[in-house]
Amino acid sequence: MFRYKMIISYDGTGYGGWQSQPNSICIQDIIESVLTKILRQKINIVGSGRTDAGVHALGQVAHFDSTIALDLSKCLYSANSLLSNEIRIFSIEETSEKFHARYSATGKTYQYRLHLDRIGDPFKAKYALHVKHKIDIEKLYTGSRHFIGTHDFSAFANQQHKGSAAIDGVRTIKRLDIIEEIGGIRLEYEGDGFLYKMVRNITGTLLDVASGKISVASIPEILQSKDRKQAGRTAEAHGLCLVEVYY
Amino acid sequence: MFRYKMIISYDGTGYGGWQSQPNSICIQDIIESVLTKILRQKINIVGSGRTDAGVHALGQVAHFDSTIALDLSKCLYSANSLLSNEIRIFSIEETSEKFHARYSATGKTYQYRLHLDRIGDPFKAKYALHVKHKIDIEKLYTGSRHFIGTHDFSAFANQQHKGSAAIDGVRTIKRLDIIEEIGGIRLEYEGDGFLYKMVRNITGTLLDVASGKISVASIPEILQSKDRKQAGRTAEAHGLCLVEVYY
Repeated sequence: MFRYKMIISYDGTGYGGWQSQPNSICIQDIIESVLTKILRQKINIVGSGRTDAGVHALGQVAHFDSTIALDLSKCLYSANSLLSNEIRIFSIEETSEKFHARYSATGKTYQYRLHLDRIGDPFKAKYALHVKHKIDIEKLYTGSRHFIGTHDFSAFANQQHKGSAAIDGVRTIKRLDIIEEIGGIRLEYEGDGFLYKMVRNITGTLLDVASGKISVASIPEILQSKDRKQAGRTAEAHGLCLVEVYY
Repeated sequence: MFRYKMIISYDGTGYGGWQSQPNSICIQDIIESVLTKILRQKINIVGSGRTDAGVHALGQVAHFDSTIALDLSKCLYSANSLLSNEIRIFSIEETSEKFHARYSATGKTYQYRLHLDRIGDPFKAKYALHVKHKIDIEKLYTGSRHFIGTHDFSAFANQQHKGSAAIDGVRTIKRLDIIEEIGGIRLEYEGDGFLYKMVRNITGTLLDVASGKISVASIPEILQSKDRKQAGRTAEAHGLCLVEVYY
């Protein structure tokens, strides 16, 4: 048995996210069916984690097992020929059987893009949250400092399923940079792992801070409350992109 | 009666082009229905020209007439609030009744984007033609020089309708620049006017030149033939963008 590691990029617009959900086309399913077709054996792929419907990826990582010793460059070419242009496999390489795309991951970087403009831009619309009203970037920056480090982020996690068992909410955000770019800013989150919807919930809360709905000073209390209801809104999916997974 | 001029940008992905075609949603219709709703009177808009299904615009221009003296900034805000993020009106201003978006136009700039990469990029897929194979940019450049100036471009025009009367095919291309950008090149065409599918047919022919299917030396003969069948293929719609209209 051989194990293969892939780096995958996708425009999440119009897809039902990474993993199978009813009534939607999922990226994992599409890639599995293409690999199954090429290798003529049922292939199951395991991603580093799920991305929600509409979320993008520059560097999603997945692995799969096969009894076939692949011609890697030919397989890469064939798979990309069968995939739509919105999903690209950047690399396929053989890896150790100890490697697991999800459990071996030691960290991830996400980015969340904001397009700050009164009118908007059709070519940014699918890849950045359009923020029409004036926001206070200074407050957004000051607020963001509270999230860096090791905290229980339960107040910023949604339950994945109704009635899921409570999970340990302690995570470490190593880096949360606010980076100016043409037309707006992007928030770059690097951490050892992220709870369900955590990046979108922190971003939504920072937007509420930047528009004055939530005070900067209340962020430590919100963290301590471990109560999702105390935090701000969930920022829309289309501004979010999984940039890189670390091993 | 007041006449208003608008500058409009759109991501043409998924739309049936600027003007009404059966079984598709057209950008002109969408903007007309939004303005009709806001002004509570039937509004007809006239664009500088049609863009085909899938073609984008950074600076499409259109005019409309109304008996209402508009609060321009309020109208701009209301229209953009009702439009999807993929269509944006950048400006609305009052203009002379002599102004006509189509007949007053003295020139246009289009750009055609090529993404030159073996694998591709999901985030460029809707806005640039993905060219997988190696092409000879030097030949593409040399070939492009033949199109600059005043020529009869009939060999590079499609008939808009089967059996349309032949129209005068003489046009002037003032500028055809080949500009390197991240991941590829873009062709910028500035001219006094363009025949139906002319930019896509010239670009397709230049791609055939760059891949060796058509020789650079044959371009003057193709122009002289005035025969569409002599020229190369029509490059796909999604690489094309109407950048600016001049008056």
